[in-house]
Amino acid sequence: MVSIIMGSDSDLPVMREAAEILTEFDIPVEVTVVSAHRTPDRLFEYARGAAARGVQVIVAGAGGAAHLPGMVASLTPLPVIGVPIKSRNSIDGWDSVLSILQMPGGIPVATVALDGAKNAGLLAARILGAQDEGIRRRMADYQESLRKAVEQKYTRLEREGWQ
Amino acid sequence: MVSIIMGSDSDLPVMREAAEILTEFDIPVEVTVVSAHRTPDRLFEYARGAAARGVQVIVAGAGGAAHLPGMVASLTPLPVIGVPIKSRNSIDGWDSVLSILQMPGGIPVATVALDGAKNAGLLAARILGAQDEGIRRRMADYQESLRKAVEQKYTRLEREGWQ
Amino acid sequence: MVSIIMGSDSDLPVMREAAEILTEFDIPVEVTVVSAHRTPDRLFEYARGAAARGVQVIVAGAGGAAHLPGMVASLTPLPVIGVPIKSRNSIDGWDSVLSILQMPGGIPVATVALDGAKNAGLLAARILGAQDEGIRRRMADYQESLRKAVEQKYTRLEREGWQ
Amino acid sequence: MVSIIMGSDSDLPVMREAAEILTEFDIPVEVTVVSAHRTPDRLFEYARGAAARGVQVIVAGAGGAAHLPGMVASLTPLPVIGVPIKSRNSIDGWDSVLSILQMPGGIPVATVALDGAKNAGLLAARILGAQDEGIRRRMADYQESLRKAVEQKYTRLEREGWQ
Amino acid sequence: MVSIIMGSDSDLPVMREAAEILTEFDIPVEVTVVSAHRTPDRLFEYARGAAARGVQVIVAGAGGAAHLPGMVASLTPLPVIGVPIKSRNSIDGWDSVLSILQMPGGIPVATVALDGAKNAGLLAARILGAQDEGIRRRMADYQESLRKAVEQKYTRLEREGWQ
Amino acid sequence: MVSIIMGSDSDLPVMREAAEILTEFDIPVEVTVVSAHRTPDRLFEYARGAAARGVQVIVAGAGGAAHLPGMVASLTPLPVIGVPIKSRNSIDGWDSVLSILQMPGGIPVATVALDGAKNAGLLAARILGAQDEGIRRRMADYQESLRKAVEQKYTRLEREGWQ
Amino acid sequence: MVSIIMGSDSDLPVMREAAEILTEFDIPVEVTVVSAHRTPDRLFEYARGAAARGVQVIVAGAGGAAHLPGMVASLTPLPVIGVPIKSRNSIDGWDSVLSILQMPGGIPVATVALDGAKNAGLLAARILGAQDEGIRRRMADYQESLRKAVEQKYTRLEREGWQ
Amino acid sequence: MVSIIMGSDSDLPVMREAAEILTEFDIPVEVTVVSAHRTPDRLFEYARGAAARGVQVIVAGAGGAAHLPGMVASLTPLPVIGVPIKSRNSIDGWDSVLSILQMPGGIPVATVALDGAKNAGLLAARILGAQDEGIRRRMADYQESLRKAVEQKYTRLEREGWQ
Repeated sequence: MVSIIMGSDSDLPVMREAAEILTEFDIPVEVTVVSAHRTPDRLFEYARGAAARGVQVIVAGAGGAAHLPGMVASLTPLPVIGVPIKSRNSIDGWDSVLSILQMPGGIPVATVALDGAKNAGLLAARILGAQDEGIRRRMADYQESLRKAVEQKYTRLEREGWQ
Repeated sequence: MVSIIMGSDSDLPVMREAAEILTEFDIPVEVTVVSAHRTPDRLFEYARGAAARGVQVIVAGAGGAAHLPGMVASLTPLPVIGVPIKSRNSIDGWDSVLSILQMPGGIPVATVALDGAKNAGLLAARILGAQDEGIRRRMADYQESLRKAVEQKYTRLEREGWQ
Repeated sequence: MVSIIMGSDSDLPVMREAAEILTEFDIPVEVTVVSAHRTPDRLFEYARGAAARGVQVIVAGAGGAAHLPGMVASLTPLPVIGVPIKSRNSIDGWDSVLSILQMPGGIPVATVALDGAKNAGLLAARILGAQDEGIRRRMADYQESLRKAVEQKYTRLEREGWQ
Repeated sequence: MVSIIMGSDSDLPVMREAAEILTEFDIPVEVTVVSAHRTPDRLFEYARGAAARGVQVIVAGAGGAAHLPGMVASLTPLPVIGVPIKSRNSIDGWDSVLSILQMPGGIPVATVALDGAKNAGLLAARILGAQDEGIRRRMADYQESLRKAVEQKYTRLEREGWQ
Repeated sequence: MVSIIMGSDSDLPVMREAAEILTEFDIPVEVTVVSAHRTPDRLFEYARGAAARGVQVIVAGAGGAAHLPGMVASLTPLPVIGVPIKSRNSIDGWDSVLSILQMPGGIPVATVALDGAKNAGLLAARILGAQDEGIRRRMADYQESLRKAVEQKYTRLEREGWQ
Repeated sequence: MVSIIMGSDSDLPVMREAAEILTEFDIPVEVTVVSAHRTPDRLFEYARGAAARGVQVIVAGAGGAAHLPGMVASLTPLPVIGVPIKSRNSIDGWDSVLSILQMPGGIPVATVALDGAKNAGLLAARILGAQDEGIRRRMADYQESLRKAVEQKYTRLEREGWQ
Repeated sequence: MVSIIMGSDSDLPVMREAAEILTEFDIPVEVTVVSAHRTPDRLFEYARGAAARGVQVIVAGAGGAAHLPGMVASLTPLPVIGVPIKSRNSIDGWDSVLSILQMPGGIPVATVALDGAKNAGLLAARILGAQDEGIRRRMADYQESLRKAVEQKYTRLEREGWQ
Repeated sequence: MVSIIMGSDSDLPVMREAAEILTEFDIPVEVTVVSAHRTPDRLFEYARGAAARGVQVIVAGAGGAAHLPGMVASLTPLPVIGVPIKSRNSIDGWDSVLSILQMPGGIPVATVALDGAKNAGLLAARILGAQDEGIRRRMADYQESLRKAVEQKYTRLEREGWQ
């Protein structure tokens, strides 16, 4: 199971893309809110208990001084994927990106692009696919579907012309 | 008492300036290491217990994705001063600055300049001075001493000339 | 008393959040305009006289090349909280942030996030709470109320699902 | 098996940290050079064949306009970890960070900190640990060892004092 | 012939300016979609075969972690012009600019301004004009037409006044 | 007379270039230290009295959160030239540049390049030359001397070759 | 006379503020378009002839890779004020700011804030006021009017309250 | 012939890499100094006359507010390659990069990486190769030599191991 958490429910419009793509891959997800700064006890409980509850990968999204992904990573041995979110008062997203990316040696967070929740979901699927040939095959199929979508586009563009 | 903590003892050369200036003000300090990512339990214990132990102000220094000041602030009602440290792999200090400064609404951290531990100590003294006239007077004296140091400099420069 | 000043009345929509949160804490505030560049005499008079008038903490907001917080800090021994404001011609807020944050050694300013007036108010309350157990308890209550608000959110999200 | 590749052998001093930490975890590694720009055929062959050869996770380091991690990710369904390297002509590392982090929707790369090869290795171990309880336990032990190292530091600092 | 490619047909509104200006110069163009990440095989085929098909200059536009121009340059001996595109999730365009500009030694990409497809077209014309006096003369005429357009503007402004 | 001031005598190695170039132009200078933050009274006195003392142009250098040029400009009707200095704790000079450059409407500061004290001196000379044909002629001679220095360089390079 | 030029008439909405404020000071202005890149001959003629035509100060506004102010400064001994303009394709204004500010030693440009044409006009007035007591007095009056405008604002705010 | 110019002979250590690589390709080069700001007449003469003298491509390197490549491009119909140079007072190279890259529509400059003179030379060769099959073949050979150099590296690394 992949657990998808976010610092605030205002992040849901971004983070739901992770849940949607994982659902497409038939990978079970849970989605909830954990705030590092407003619910620190819940943060501890959540992160410490995740592995035992059967969670295999955690996807954590947060904006501004985004401490959620890094703190979760310090409290679990599971792989944690961080999604920097461009929140309202963010300085163009740089704060979220750097707060998640620049983790000190010892505690890794797998960071994806700003607002890149879809890729976070795909990365979670690839992580599960590392030891599950079925998922890996579905990922290859997904990549083939991306190729086909581009093929349709250039076929139409070449047929209809750019004018 | 002012409690001065840092994410690693490699931050001590920067952070000791906070302890030194507070000692000059005869304000008692404690200095220790608390790592948000490597000792999360200690982080909780430390921050939850600080007020009861008589700590009045916390100064927390950290580099890179610096989560220590913000996490401490979420676990205590005391004022927390954050010192961004330009650590070895830092991207010119921007990561530490933004991880500490850009806290979400609800949980404030008083951020000072990059490697600005001395100002963190002075800010702690001003905070205590807000309700302690003795400290406030010493702060005014300190500011007068800064003025005098500049006076010596411009007197010498004007006397000796710039050539 | 906490004194809240800003460089222009166009900053009021941001800065009023500081006054509102302090009022929630039953901490008296005064709110006015002081411009470092357009009313330098007023700046001097205001900052030099603040402590004697019973002000305990100063919150100063300014945008662009924001000199107000730093200049006030140089003229008073009180703690000064600086709020960088993303004004109309600001370069994404970087100018306000750096003009307030990067104070030289000797003169500290407690900087909060871009447009972070609410946190400035909360920081002022924590500063007063450093030596006032009543305020400190109300701050702990406030933090509990943040926790509860998040609890409502995740309870609803988990009950209703993310779809 | 974890495959560790880099754009040039001049990246080895950084990238060997990934190999070292994985070796500590008794996870087999291979280490080689693949250049997206100078050996594009090798890039294709390498990335297309990796899964079939038994590779489970790929760690790819590159500097400047760092295309290696993203291109590998487009050619394999395996999880790819990208390590931005601060190379000689890099603009403070921003080029490597952004070229690896900001992948378009569909093709995820798990990005770690600038020069963060050690964390890349740890992330690879966590990825394998997602479905291997033995590795997960060793990761928990590793985290405990980090805690102990900090404990030694603060014990010594508290005993010897900061002066 | 100049070949104009882009990572997605959503880039066409920007990239068509290259096609338009080249058409004004009577230089034949082809316009299509090649995605480095979603159609890597097509990327190889396209870039490897371009010179033989009579393409003389390639203009490649891409956003975010923009690998298309650099990868094409590594697969062809032709001059490649890169157009950084400010896509939806781009961090103010810095990601596209740096991913295209900061190519390692050995594989050059001629980078133009953010969203600068028109200049990419003009650069392609200048490149062909390096060995074709007719095109060079048309370029001189074009530059004269720019001068005339400014002349009209300042003549009107000086006549009508700025009020 | 041109008055050259700086926030600290540690800025003298940079700022003396302004004095030197003005001395070459036979324009009288005074050089002293005025700190906006450590000697605010002196700042007021200095800036308020400058015009009456016969100062015609002020050159003010400062680093970090550089408030000196802007505060002087708010206290005098004279033209003020600001020199951003890359001080020890500066974040690559961005703080000094933005604190000086981004002045609000109403109070101008003429900003020159980072550590650009020589150009500040030349700009002061041009300002005096705006109404003094003798200085203007000397500036034209100076520009001719720059041309000649380049001429020597390219003559030698072309004669000796680049190998 | 102050000569106000800009790279394109699309810059007029910004640059007219310079003309307006100078007109308020009864200082004669001329306003026209000179493009460094599209009318290089005009640039030469304009800049070389300005002093002889009676121009005393030049204000030059430009966006993007803004070469106009610097090139004019290289062709005249007059003081040149540069106004960085945030044009349509600008990267948040950084390109204009740095292209104007970072002039090499020998050729100064007096740079003002992004889109800061009003301050450019005021700086031109101060430059003329350096040797003209009448203008200097009017500048002092203008500064007094700024003070009064702020006084009205704080009087109203204090009377009406912030609620 | 390729003409290689630079703003100052202090840029020669960087710019000679362009001359060296072109010499390897048996493409004739000239190397000289042209300063946009210190020798504007020479700039005009040089750029206006280049095409007639048989120059086919111009490579122009400059640092700081780098106006040379853009001004040359405005004065010639030839393709101009700009090399941003990280000069002594540069703000980490950003000034040179943006001053060269962000040219307005109408006047293209082909920008390469910071200090990327070698790639500028290779780009010049590719430009000539667009209409010269011999050069194009040598470029393909050069790319093959890059491949071989990487092959040696990975062969040695795989043979000797990474320890």
